Amino acid sequence: MLGSTHGTLTTDSRRARVIACGEQPGPAVHGRPAEVDDLDVSGRPLYCDVPDLDRFFRPESVAVIGASDAEGRPNTGITRQLIAWSERVGARLHPVHPSRPSVFGIPCSPSVANLPEQIDLAVLLVADPLPVIEELAEAKVKFAVVFASGFAETGEAGAAAQDRLTAAVARSGMRLLGPNTNLNAFERFRDDLDGPAIALITQSGHQGRPVFALQELGIRLSHWAPTGNEADLETADFISYFAEQPEVGAIACYVEGLKDGRSFLLAADRAARRKVPVVAVKVGRTETGARTAASHTGKLTGADAVVDAAMRQYGVIRVDGLDELQDTATLLARARPPRAEGVVVYSISGGTGAHFADLATEAGLRLPVLSEAKQAELHQWIPEYLNVANPVDNGGHPVGDRRGRKIIDAILDDPEVGVLICPVTGPFPPLSDRLVQDLVDAAERTDKLVCVVWGSPVGTERAYREVLLGSSRVATFRTVANCITAVRAYLDHHRFVAGYRSPFDQAPRTPSPSFRKARELMRPGQQLSEHAAKQLLRAYGIRVPREQLVTSAAAAVRAAGLVGYPVVMKASGARIAHKTELGLVRIGLTSASQVRDAYRELTDIARYEDVPLDGVLVCQMVERGVEMVVGATHDPLFGPTVTVGLGGVLVEVLHDTAVRVPPFGEEQARDMFAELRGRALLDGVRGRPPADLDALVEVVLRVQRMALELEGELAELDINPLMVLPRGQGAVALDALAVCR
Amino acid sequence: MLGSTHGTLTTDSRRARVIACGEQPGPAVHGRPAEVDDLDVSGRPLYCDVPDLDRFFRPESVAVIGASDAEGRPNTGITRQLIAWSERVGARLHPVHPSRPSVFGIPCSPSVANLPEQIDLAVLLVADPLPVIEELAEAKVKFAVVFASGFAETGEAGAAAQDRLTAAVARSGMRLLGPNTNLNAFERFRDDLDGPAIALITQSGHQGRPVFALQELGIRLSHWAPTGNEADLETADFISYFAEQPEVGAIACYVEGLKDGRSFLLAADRAARRKVPVVAVKVGRTETGARTAASHTGKLTGADAVVDAAMRQYGVIRVDGLDELQDTATLLARARPPRAEGVVVYSISGGTGAHFADLATEAGLRLPVLSEAKQAELHQWIPEYLNVANPVDNGGHPVGDRRGRKIIDAILDDPEVGVLICPVTGPFPPLSDRLVQDLVDAAERTDKLVCVVWGSPVGTERAYREVLLGSSRVATFRTVANCITAVRAYLDHHRFVAGYRSPFDQAPRTPSPSFRKARELMRPGQQLSEHAAKQLLRAYGIRVPREQLVTSAAAAVRAAGLVGYPVVMKASGARIAHKTELGLVRIGLTSASQVRDAYRELTDIARYEDVPLDGVLVCQMVERGVEMVVGATHDPLFGPTVTVGLGGVLVEVLHDTAVRVPPFGEEQARDMFAELRGRALLDGVRGRPPADLDALVEVVLRVQRMALELEGELAELDINPLMVLPRGQGAVALDALAVCR
Repeated sequence: MLGSTHGTLTTDSRRARVIACGEQPGPAVHGRPAEVDDLDVSGRPLYCDVPDLDRFFRPESVAVIGASDAEGRPNTGITRQLIAWSERVGARLHPVHPSRPSVFGIPCSPSVANLPEQIDLAVLLVADPLPVIEELAEAKVKFAVVFASGFAETGEAGAAAQDRLTAAVARSGMRLLGPNTNLNAFERFRDDLDGPAIALITQSGHQGRPVFALQELGIRLSHWAPTGNEADLETADFISYFAEQPEVGAIACYVEGLKDGRSFLLAADRAARRKVPVVAVKVGRTETGARTAASHTGKLTGADAVVDAAMRQYGVIRVDGLDELQDTATLLARARPPRAEGVVVYSISGGTGAHFADLATEAGLRLPVLSEAKQAELHQWIPEYLNVANPVDNGGHPVGDRRGRKIIDAILDDPEVGVLICPVTGPFPPLSDRLVQDLVDAAERTDKLVCVVWGSPVGTERAYREVLLGSSRVATFRTVANCITAVRAYLDHHRFVAGYRSPFDQAPRTPSPSFRKARELMRPGQQLSEHAAKQLLRAYGIRVPREQLVTSAAAAVRAAGLVGYPVVMKASGARIAHKTELGLVRIGLTSASQVRDAYRELTDIARYEDVPLDGVLVCQMVERGVEMVVGATHDPLFGPTVTVGLGGVLVEVLHDTAVRVPPFGEEQARDMFAELRGRALLDGVRGRPPADLDALVEVVLRVQRMALELEGELAELDINPLMVLPRGQGAVALDALAVCR
Repeated sequence: MLGSTHGTLTTDSRRARVIACGEQPGPAVHGRPAEVDDLDVSGRPLYCDVPDLDRFFRPESVAVIGASDAEGRPNTGITRQLIAWSERVGARLHPVHPSRPSVFGIPCSPSVANLPEQIDLAVLLVADPLPVIEELAEAKVKFAVVFASGFAETGEAGAAAQDRLTAAVARSGMRLLGPNTNLNAFERFRDDLDGPAIALITQSGHQGRPVFALQELGIRLSHWAPTGNEADLETADFISYFAEQPEVGAIACYVEGLKDGRSFLLAADRAARRKVPVVAVKVGRTETGARTAASHTGKLTGADAVVDAAMRQYGVIRVDGLDELQDTATLLARARPPRAEGVVVYSISGGTGAHFADLATEAGLRLPVLSEAKQAELHQWIPEYLNVANPVDNGGHPVGDRRGRKIIDAILDDPEVGVLICPVTGPFPPLSDRLVQDLVDAAERTDKLVCVVWGSPVGTERAYREVLLGSSRVATFRTVANCITAVRAYLDHHRFVAGYRSPFDQAPRTPSPSFRKARELMRPGQQLSEHAAKQLLRAYGIRVPREQLVTSAAAAVRAAGLVGYPVVMKASGARIAHKTELGLVRIGLTSASQVRDAYRELTDIARYEDVPLDGVLVCQMVERGVEMVVGATHDPLFGPTVTVGLGGVLVEVLHDTAVRVPPFGEEQARDMFAELRGRALLDGVRGRPPADLDALVEVVLRVQRMALELEGELAELDINPLMVLPRGQGAVALDALAVCR
C-alpha cells in the first residue's frame, strides 16, 4: 500500500517532523541517525537519539562571552561562579570581551574568532545572543548556554526572535541550552556523597532549589539542567541523556510546558526501558495554572487529562508539590527493587499503627496479614495481647532492649514483606533513639525498603538529624502523605518497568489495506454524513448495523425488508447533530406502514427544521448491549488521541472517560476500561450478561490505527453509541460522527 | 399525639438515653440539668450539659492511689511526674499506699478513707480500680483517672469489667477519665506562650505527641485530654468544655472510635455555636483501619461515610495525617476571621507562582484577578513585563530593598484579598531573609492571614527557625499540600460558623399527625409489601402513583379504568425483591386485553418462581422525570440516617449517594444534591427540563421526619425510584421498600 496515493505525508514532511522532535544531525549527536524507517505510519519518529551531553556537563574548555570583573555588574558574579565551576570540573576557562585585556586575571579574547582553542561550551551573558551564535557556529563550538530573557515568554515578537535563534542553532550543528536559563547547571554539587543520585531538570530555577538542597540532607545530586525556553535542548533530551548515566538513580523534573509531546514520550520510553524512574511535577492541572505557566515560559501546557494519561502510559510518576517531588525522587533513586509488594506498618503504639494502616490501605498499599508462624515468632518478644498481624504493635518496651532489633529483622525476613514503614510520632530518647538506630542497622543488612516517618514537627532531634538523615538506606519522611505517595510510586514503578514492553516497537510503520478505502471517503474540512462515517468504520473492520440509505418511502419499505424488522430510521445528512433531540430518529418500527409513516415524518421535520438531507437511513435495530463511546481527537501536543467512555448519561453527565496517546498496545487498551468509574456495567449488573470486552478492545485498537493512518486528514471521530453485545457476540457502531481536517 | 400508643419510647427509656449521652447528675456538672423536654421526637437528647472540668485540670487537692518511690517501679516515675505537676498547678498532693509511711518525703495515707482533706482529683495507679472507685465515691472525690488497661480493648471479659466501672461511676456522681489512659493531661505545658491555644484530645497518647511538640515551635497548648477507653468522660465532653474556655483557639482531636454519635454531634454543635474550630483525625476510612482501631480502643468506628457526613454537618474539619492536624489546628487557632475570601499567591518567581496557583485553584481556593488599579500600583515596584494579576511575580530583585514591604502591604490592602501566601522555594539570604522579615512585619500590622511555605527541606535556616517560627502572626508550612489544606479549612470554617444555625434548635420534639397512621402499618421484624410501604409514604404526605391492589384479572381491568391508561402492573407481596429481574413488572399497558394478559403472566411467573403474592398492583404510569433514590437506614453510632442518590445506573454502579444525619434542615437537604456527581441530571441535560428540586427536598425532609418518629420501629426505608417531575410538578414514589425492626 506504500504507493504514491497514500497521503499527504511526503518523505520531506516526515523528515521535517523528525527535526521537530529535536533530532539534529551533527557531530554532537552519537548513535545511529534517524531514518525514514524510524517513522510510524503517522509520519512521526519512533526513535530519538540520545544527545551526547558529556562535554556539556564536563567540558574541557569553556568560553564566557561577556565576562566581567567590574564591581556591581551582574555578569561579574556569574563570571566568578563560572570560573569556580570550571576549576571544579577541570575545564580551561576563556573570557571573551571586546575591550578588557583580562577578567579576574585570566587573559581575555576580544572575540569568539580569537579564542585560543577549540571550545566545548560557550556561556553567553550578552543581551542579544543571535550574532554571537553565528560566530560560535563558525568556531565549531559544541554547546552554548544563553541566559538572556525576552524571548517566547514575552509574546509574539519574542517568539519570533526565539525562532531565529532556533534556526541558527539548527544550521550550526551546535546544541543550545536556553534562552532564559541560568547558572543552575554550574552549581557546586557535593562530591562526597555516594550511591545513586538524583538528576534534576527544571523549567524554573527557583523551583529546582528545594531538590538541589537535598544534598544538605546527604542525598546525592548528579546534574541540574535548567532548560529555560528550550529553543533547542529540551526536557526530553535531558531525560534521555540522564537515563543513560550510571550514577543516576532517578530523574526529577519540574515541567511547565512540553515543547513536543512525541519527543517527551520517546524520552520517557527510553527511561522506562532502562528502568530509570522519572518523577515529574507538571503544572497545568487547572486553567489558571496552565495560563500562568504559559505566560512564564511561552510554552503550551497541553490538555491536562492527555498529559496525565501520556505520563502514566510511559511510567512517568506525576506528583503535585515540590516536597513530594523531593521525597519520591529520593526514595526511587536510592531504594533497590522490591522483593515483594507487601507493606508492614510497625510502631510502638496500636493507635499509630491503626491510623497509618488506615491511610496506607486507602491509598492502595497492600498490608498482608502476617502468617500465624510469623506472628508466633513476633510474640516471642511482643506481649500476647498486642496485635502483630499487621500493623505490628510492639507496645513500646521491646524497642528499648535487644528485642527491638530482633522484631525488625523478623519482619524483614518475611518473604511476603517488601517494605517496612515505622511511623515515630515523637522523640522519647530511651525508646526512639534505640528504635531508630535499630532500623538504620537493620536496613544496612537487607535489600528491603525501610521507611521512617519522623512525626515530630521540631526536626532538630539528634535521632532525626544525625541517625536517620545519616543513613542512605532508611528513607525518612516528615509527613504521612508524602511517605505513602512515595512508597506507592516505588512499588508502581518497579511493577511497571518489570512488565514494560515499548509500544514504539510494535507501532505500525506502513498503512493497512484499510487506508486506501478510508482516504477516498475523506472530504477536507467537512463533517461526513452518518452513512459515510459508518463506511469509514467499515473500512477499518468495525461492525456497523445492516443499513440502507433511501430517498423514498417505497425504497424505505424495500430496505426494511432487506435489513429485517424491527428497524430504526434516521434522517441522514452531512450537517445533522442532535438527531434525537430534533426528533429525527424513529426506533422499533415493525411494519411497512410504520416505515412509510416514519419516512414521511422524518422528511417533514427536516424540511420544517431546514436540515438538508441526503436521505433516510433504514437500519437494523440492535438492543441489549452496553452503550459505549469510542472516539479519536487531535491534541496540540501529542497528536491523535483515543478516548473511551460509558455511553448515555455516564459520559454526558459524569464525563466518565479514559484517554490514551498512541501508540499503545492491547494491554493498555484493556487498562482504559479499568479506569472508568462505571466499569461494572461491562461486567454485567442487575443480572445482565458480561459485555464482549474483547470486541470492544478490538474496536479501540482499530480506531487507534485509523487515527494514526489518517493523522493529517481526520480531525475527529466519535462512535456514539458503540453497542457492546454480550460476550462472544461482538460490538456494533450504531452511530458515528467524523470530521475531516 | 403524645398518647400512650405512641411507641416503645417510655419516659424511662428516654432518660436512659440521656444518661448514655454522658449526661450525669451530680455536683460536678454545672448548667441546667437535662429534662424530658430536651429530647427530640426519637427520644434522643437535644442538649448536653458542659461538664465542669475546671477542678480536673486545676485541682486544689490530688490523691495518688498506689504512689511509689521504690527504685525501678513504673509507678515511681508516674508519682514523680504527678508531684511535679501538682506543684506547677498549685495542688496539694497526697500519696495513698497501705504500707508506706511516706512517698518522696510526702506523708502517705493508708487508704482513701484516711485522706486528710476533700480530694478534687484521684489518680489510680492500681491494677484493679473498681474497689477503689467505690471508696472514692464514698469520699466524694470529684474526679478519678484510671491508668489500668485490660478493659474493653481486650475483648468481652474486659468490656464487662469496663461496664462495671461505668456503672460504679454513674452511681457515684464522680467523673472518671480512662481506663487505659496515661499521664498526658499532667504534662508540662509551656506557660511563656501567648495568644489563642490548641486544646488537644486524643484516644492514643502517642498520637498526640506531635501536636504537643508544637510548643517547641512556639505554638501554645492549653490542655491535653487523653481519653483512653472513655468508660465515663468521652471526647465529646472535652470538646464541649474546651469550646467554653477563653484561651482555646482550636480543638485538635485524634479519634479512633466514638462512644456515642449524638453526644459527639451535640458537642460539635456547641463548638460551632461558639465559633471554635474542631479539627479531627478520625481513623476508619478503610476496613483495615476500622478493625485495627476497634481492637486498640474497644470502640466501634462507625460507617465512615456517615461519620464523614456528620462531621461536615457540624463543621468538624476532618484531616488525614497528624502533620495536617498540627498545621490546620495551628492556623485555625491563631488566625483572625478572614476579611475576604480571595487568596493571593506572591513569589519571587513566575514558576513558583504558577505552580502554587495551579494547585491552590485545583483545591478550590479562589484566586481573584487583581484590579487594574492594583496591578498598576504593584507595577510601581515590579517591572512591567512580570505578571502581577495573581499570582504576583516580583521577579526577585524588589524583595531585596524597600520595595518588598510596599508590595506586600499593597496586596494586603486590597479589599478582595483575605489571604496572602508566599511560597519560598529556598533560602537565598540576600533576598529571602529580607522577604521573610517583611512578611513577618507586615503580618503584625494586618488582620489578614499571611502564610509562608518554607520549601527548603533542610529546616535549619535562621530565616525559618528564628524569624518565621518566632512569629505568631505568620502561618508557616513545610509542604504545599498542608498549606492548601489548612487555608481551605480556615476559609471553610469561618464561612460555616458565620452561617451556622443549629439544627437541634429546629428538631421536632413531638410526633406529627402522620405518626399514628404510620405506626398502624408497622409489622415488627417484617418487610412490608410495596403497597403497604407506599401507604406509609402516603401517611407522611409523600406522593405515590394512583394504584389499586387486585386479586383477579377482571378486577385488574376495572382498576386500570379507574387509574387511567397506560398502566404499570407489578406483582405485590411482602417478600419480593428484584421484581424487574424476575419479570414481575409490566409497563406501558394500554388496553384491557393487555391488562388481562399481564395479570395472567405475572401470577404465572410468581407461581413458577414460588413467590407468594398478596395480589397485583395496577398503577398509574409516570414517565419523563429524573429517577432518584431516597432512603433511611439505621447507623449503629448515629441512629437514623437519610440517603439520596441518582437512580438507575448511577446509584447501582457508581454508588453516587449523599447521606445526612438527622436532625438537619432544608439547607442541608439541598446541599446533599450538590454532593452528587451526577447532579447535572437534576438541572436538565440534553434539552430536558430542570427537575422539581423543591419537591425532592420536601420528600427528603418528610423521610427524615419519618425516620426520626419511627426510630425504634423502622429498620430501613428505600424509595427507588422516586420520579422527580419537571419543576413545579412534584415528585412521585414509584416503588418503595420498608423493613420493620
